[in-house]
Amino acid sequence: MIKNLSLLADFYEFTMSQGYFENSMKDTEVVFDMFFRKVPDGGGYAIVAGLEQFIKYVKELHFEKSDIEYLRSKKIFSDEFLQYLADFKFTCDIWAVKEGTPVFPNEPLVIVKGPVIQAQLIETMLLLSINHQSLIATKASRIVRAADGKAVMEFGARRAQGKDGAVYGARAAYIAGCAGSSCTITDDMFGIPALGTMAHSWVQMFDNEYDAFRAYAEAFPSDCTLLIDTYNVLKSGLPNAIRVFNDVVLKKGFRPKGVRIDSGDITYLSKKVRDELDANGFEDVKIIVSNSLDENIIKDTLAQGAMIDIFGVGERLITSKSEPVFGGVYKLVSVYKDGMEIPKIKISENVGKITNPSFKNLYRLFDNKTGKAIADVITLHDELIDEKEPYVLFDPEYTWKKKIISDFTAIPLLIQVMKKGELVYELPELSKVRANCECELGKIWDEVKRFENPHKYYVDLSEKLWKVKQKLLEDNSK
Amino acid sequence: MIKNLSLLADFYEFTMSQGYFENSMKDTEVVFDMFFRKVPDGGGYAIVAGLEQFIKYVKELHFEKSDIEYLRSKKIFSDEFLQYLADFKFTCDIWAVKEGTPVFPNEPLVIVKGPVIQAQLIETMLLLSINHQSLIATKASRIVRAADGKAVMEFGARRAQGKDGAVYGARAAYIAGCAGSSCTITDDMFGIPALGTMAHSWVQMFDNEYDAFRAYAEAFPSDCTLLIDTYNVLKSGLPNAIRVFNDVVLKKGFRPKGVRIDSGDITYLSKKVRDELDANGFEDVKIIVSNSLDENIIKDTLAQGAMIDIFGVGERLITSKSEPVFGGVYKLVSVYKDGMEIPKIKISENVGKITNPSFKNLYRLFDNKTGKAIADVITLHDELIDEKEPYVLFDPEYTWKKKIISDFTAIPLLIQVMKKGELVYELPELSKVRANCECELGKIWDEVKRFENPHKYYVDLSEKLWKVKQKLLEDNSK
Repeated sequence: MIKNLSLLADFYEFTMSQGYFENSMKDTEVVFDMFFRKVPDGGGYAIVAGLEQFIKYVKELHFEKSDIEYLRSKKIFSDEFLQYLADFKFTCDIWAVKEGTPVFPNEPLVIVKGPVIQAQLIETMLLLSINHQSLIATKASRIVRAADGKAVMEFGARRAQGKDGAVYGARAAYIAGCAGSSCTITDDMFGIPALGTMAHSWVQMFDNEYDAFRAYAEAFPSDCTLLIDTYNVLKSGLPNAIRVFNDVVLKKGFRPKGVRIDSGDITYLSKKVRDELDANGFEDVKIIVSNSLDENIIKDTLAQGAMIDIFGVGERLITSKSEPVFGGVYKLVSVYKDGMEIPKIKISENVGKITNPSFKNLYRLFDNKTGKAIADVITLHDELIDEKEPYVLFDPEYTWKKKIISDFTAIPLLIQVMKKGELVYELPELSKVRANCECELGKIWDEVKRFENPHKYYVDLSEKLWKVKQKLLEDNSK
Repeated sequence: MIKNLSLLADFYEFTMSQGYFENSMKDTEVVFDMFFRKVPDGGGYAIVAGLEQFIKYVKELHFEKSDIEYLRSKKIFSDEFLQYLADFKFTCDIWAVKEGTPVFPNEPLVIVKGPVIQAQLIETMLLLSINHQSLIATKASRIVRAADGKAVMEFGARRAQGKDGAVYGARAAYIAGCAGSSCTITDDMFGIPALGTMAHSWVQMFDNEYDAFRAYAEAFPSDCTLLIDTYNVLKSGLPNAIRVFNDVVLKKGFRPKGVRIDSGDITYLSKKVRDELDANGFEDVKIIVSNSLDENIIKDTLAQGAMIDIFGVGERLITSKSEPVFGGVYKLVSVYKDGMEIPKIKISENVGKITNPSFKNLYRLFDNKTGKAIADVITLHDELIDEKEPYVLFDPEYTWKKKIISDFTAIPLLIQVMKKGELVYELPELSKVRANCECELGKIWDEVKRFENPHKYYVDLSEKLWKVKQKLLEDNSK
């Protein structure tokens, strides 16, 4: 088990930190932005998640004797620097977009402002936490929307990339709208409803399928879901299930809950099973399906009229198999010298990789008539958007592309979560994060949420920020 | 943080367990196999890893009061069953293939034999541990072989799927031959050499690149590697690095260590940088490259004559991006009734998904002349292979395909690691696991290790096992 996370950092965070320390720069104030450049799977939006785990890490960040001894053993760190780490106290300010919010490329999702060593040391865990959970929440959001109102259960623990992959992946999936998880611990830890009945091994443990079903129904008459594909769904599994529903569950005064199919042509089978269940008076018995599902297969099955109530989605959700990386980065955007902000830019030959400089803010502009989001605007930190005046949006690259909007509401998306290292934000319960996700996603136009070739949501720069960036670009090319 | 792993199990493990308990089957002896069906990335072999973490989980497996209270709150578990869990003690036997061993589809990698509830409850963590680390070790092995003797460093923590993804992913990568990791904690936990110098933010913190390099070299004269691509590698980064190597590092009596390039055309740049370094007397200074690398890009750069000493590989290794799932499964293969073994088979319309029944063993047959592996043979558990007699290998599907071998050595690959729940295997140090991997991979023919369309390594069944399987298939089709 990982005991103390303070060393879960790239080694260069420590070498740079000692470098700053030795160069009397340890208290130099800086601003870093965390942002991403591309939505996975060609989607139109991402769902940000993982803030709570990052914040908990920061709150507990300290260096124990054993950490210091390890670093000392590398023989490149000075005693003074190691003493500094032993006395380490996190005092930065942090702003972040609330978990569960739909977000777009190049937007600051987390801003860290404070002494450079502190802002640097948390880089790895910040990126790891937000990248992982945003990846899974974004994928889960696609899958949940593909299911079109049918429930999606997260079933992937056994194929997750490690324990945290399973546990926090299930958390992220729940935020984005999954109804629950097969994983027991996430029910205990977060209140994510756990669901599960039997594996094929249960059926194989008995002399025949009927006995296996009967034994299960005797043990769980009030919560009886049977796995009907061990031998043959239509010839054996379903008839045996119906017999047991009648022989045991109804007799004990309960209604059976469901049947599960884990293989075969689930579209075809689900229709046949539905007909048969209905014909036997089990209209309320749910059909649960699980077999290498993802958003594309789910859309296909529904388009072909599959009669499925619950989709169990495993490895393709818990690893975001089609694109398993959320490429969030953490970039220096300002340094303070004698109290003056010096904005920083990272130039790249690839124009899309040029960073947005300065200590910033982020607004989402909503149309007051429709309630839908029009665009996001990245501004300087202290900049306000006057909702009473018409506001000119312009494309930061093709500046002649302009749009004037009025009758809108500008909502700041970045919330201050830490002030001088103290938590000033009440971490919401997971159910509220999940509700926030559903609510905010409802304000995004469907065109942006298309699975393929979505409409590009505008993320513009305010004129003031654009000018700061432009000046840095011009200074740099001199 | 995840505190107690006993609930990191699919919920159905608990419902099935209560079912067995209620049906007086809790002590029914069974055998489960863990195996996989397909090597990721179309490769010819996988590297098994993750056993140590699984074993540690099993050793500590117990249910605390809070776990019991959680389960009680579900209102479907009986008091008797919950008391059983409170008193739970693991007493199974476990056999496993040593970590770092090259393995092939359908081979039992872990065998669990014991009371059915116990064997069932550990399913999720077994699969999760072995699937995750085998995935990353298998990918890392491809990448290390592509690097053809150049060092590969694991750089992916910030893009890993959770903390364990980073930490145990780095462990798996090291087993498969990576030289080290950027992640500090894995050095402390496992002795995996940590490496790292500076980010672009370091360079941006200073008024110019020379000052940034100089400050770093002053802080780390004995361990000075400089990141030379913040502005322009050839026009700025490299000349500044050479100046600082001369002005600071040499003057302090040290040799500079390296330069790192993180963007651009690394093949072209590395050649130019090598020439320039050599021309300035820095033949020993290493070139480290990192920029969305994987085995294909590494092969390409080397084929085009890139002068790279160390490859830093990030997200594409730590998530096995091209195929992020290792599909290991856990299947019931035998049930004991009145002391008699009743082999079990899971039939599927997909012939490749039919399981191999029975309590088994696994041998690797080596040619005594070449020392290379000829084939693996899955046998009944107590079956011995007589090396003194010629041995007939036959294809389990196309049984007329036969090969008679002699002058071979048959090495059992499954080691007993637990006996009645007690650890009877000394978990080797990670360096030994890594050495085992290199050694055993050396015994596999290169044809099997090809990146594309590898030669299929034979995994055959012994005649006795084949007959057991055949009988079950025939009985089933009656």
